[in-house]
Amino acid sequence: MATRRGDTLIFPKPPVIAAHACIGGKKEGESPLAAEFDELHSDNRLGQASWEAAETQLQLQVARLCLKKAHATEKDVSLLLAGDLQAQCTASGYAARALGLPFAGLFGACSTMAEALGVGACLCSAGMADGLLAMTSSHFCTAERQFRTPLSYGAVRTPTAQWTATAAGACLLRPAGQGVGIRAVTFGRVQDLGIRDINNMGAAMAPAAAATLLRYLTDTNTQPQKFDAICTGDLGHVGSQLFRELLAAEGLLLKNHVDCGSLLYDAEGQSVHSGASGPGCCAAVLCGHLLPRLERRGQRRVLFLATGALMSQTTFLQKESIPAISHLVELAAPEEQNGGNT
Amino acid sequence: MATRRGDTLIFPKPPVIAAHACIGGKKEGESPLAAEFDELHSDNRLGQASWEAAETQLQLQVARLCLKKAHATEKDVSLLLAGDLQAQCTASGYAARALGLPFAGLFGACSTMAEALGVGACLCSAGMADGLLAMTSSHFCTAERQFRTPLSYGAVRTPTAQWTATAAGACLLRPAGQGVGIRAVTFGRVQDLGIRDINNMGAAMAPAAAATLLRYLTDTNTQPQKFDAICTGDLGHVGSQLFRELLAAEGLLLKNHVDCGSLLYDAEGQSVHSGASGPGCCAAVLCGHLLPRLERRGQRRVLFLATGALMSQTTFLQKESIPAISHLVELAAPEEQNGGNT
Repeated sequence: MATRRGDTLIFPKPPVIAAHACIGGKKEGESPLAAEFDELHSDNRLGQASWEAAETQLQLQVARLCLKKAHATEKDVSLLLAGDLQAQCTASGYAARALGLPFAGLFGACSTMAEALGVGACLCSAGMADGLLAMTSSHFCTAERQFRTPLSYGAVRTPTAQWTATAAGACLLRPAGQGVGIRAVTFGRVQDLGIRDINNMGAAMAPAAAATLLRYLTDTNTQPQKFDAICTGDLGHVGSQLFRELLAAEGLLLKNHVDCGSLLYDAEGQSVHSGASGPGCCAAVLCGHLLPRLERRGQRRVLFLATGALMSQTTFLQKESIPAISHLVELAAPEEQNGGNT
Repeated sequence: MATRRGDTLIFPKPPVIAAHACIGGKKEGESPLAAEFDELHSDNRLGQASWEAAETQLQLQVARLCLKKAHATEKDVSLLLAGDLQAQCTASGYAARALGLPFAGLFGACSTMAEALGVGACLCSAGMADGLLAMTSSHFCTAERQFRTPLSYGAVRTPTAQWTATAAGACLLRPAGQGVGIRAVTFGRVQDLGIRDINNMGAAMAPAAAATLLRYLTDTNTQPQKFDAICTGDLGHVGSQLFRELLAAEGLLLKNHVDCGSLLYDAEGQSVHSGASGPGCCAAVLCGHLLPRLERRGQRRVLFLATGALMSQTTFLQKESIPAISHLVELAAPEEQNGGNT
């Protein structure tokens, strides 16, 4: 069960992330976080006939690996919540077909991992799911042709452009037990400050992350310095700067902000310009980097705010501005779950 | 709270559909169900610059109308669950931007209304949302170019083809009070019997509806004749026939089956071949036709199984078969909510 304060749901008995896994592709294998992935593929096609099928394979492999790490099987899962960036979320649909689990598809673009953890935490804490898989993926090659230009055009990337990660992450949620706790969830409201540049996702998404963070802090009457890290999804370098500026304008100076999109790649060495993006980016960084730190108690309390840009190639060509959303989950190291000030 | 039996969640204190609304376009205004729509547009562009923007308007109008019918405002809504067929669910994203509500995007193709009611019922019954809007839409012109061919090609439609409804439906869920009760939810598992014809959605989706219905009946140990109607989403005439054949092969002879896709249009008079489809189809038929009957107690217990085909134009061109899913919600007339055998 949960207590509602404003837009924020607080779980007195936090559901837990009992196991997690992440898988990456070639560029992820050359990144500073390479050692933190559970598996890496040197071939981004994963032996499949298409990139889209490769992304389905990423999801399938990460789901099975997550279950294996939990010493669980598909029978221990009541529900799969998954999403991706492909039109009509087909990476998730085909993965769900192969997994054979009850499945509810989500779409929040790059915010989907936090959305899945948020909805999943609600269902688990209310006894409506025993084991619940929350999973997202992205693939550079499927995303670029969905949102921008076919790769074979060799379009020049602008300085604000981010590199869609070829990666997937999965978390197995349980109502209680060992694992990082999900103490609170804030579902975001769509923000749009009028950005129209499809190569500047960070700028489009920064206001959404700022709005959701401010709302969570107000709802829970908490100060940002209470957290070891406030971790946004994939604002990248440009978006992160804007995010901190937007918060500074509200009188909040964040000293503990990190961004999964900035962490994943070596921006200069890997030529990724403003950083990484994609629902697989923050899912993989969460599962490979953030959750292990919480489990080792190197960090105790972390806010995870994934951000998503809700446009399509059609709305871009129609010159619509880019709406964005950010969902927040509050994570707590295992022994911290029943204390604290929320 | 809920009791879990297999894949089915049963709500001893059912959350309710406190209000609902539906809006349709020109063809819907000429249909046998025209009188049951709350509003009809003779111009499918709704005065907008694009069909995509028109679909957003459909959602916006139906959400506001639903709230108006409940004598409620946006402030009474804790969460919006919405989805549509456009790539990256942009009709819902832009509608959520205008509504300014906390928003979790769903993707289940034409099954999205049942998914939204299912997730929404879980959240409401667990006290995690006070008022919750569940909403879906579709638009003939946005869907045809997403999934098949640009309309201006004037492609000939095959006998199995269905006509994507230009329509939207919205339900306001509350944890308790007046309204049709949601007594149970079954989240479906993806089914795929190998259909590859993008003009035969009914055949692709029929196995999903059959699988979910069988699972619900087993989970709850109920006979189909206990219901006044077993209502599928948009199988159309071809898919409905296959659905009944699949169940007959399992020894179940359904005499109370109706299909929203078969109900909406006059198949011959309106030249729609196999019937209607789209997430807006079953949402509108639910809100305009099924729920009022339950409210008037003309029917007491109804199963609503929306079905979705989870392919995209890309996976179609890649010659993948079409995975499909069906989610089920059990609806009960107002005074029936606390009785019955579930």
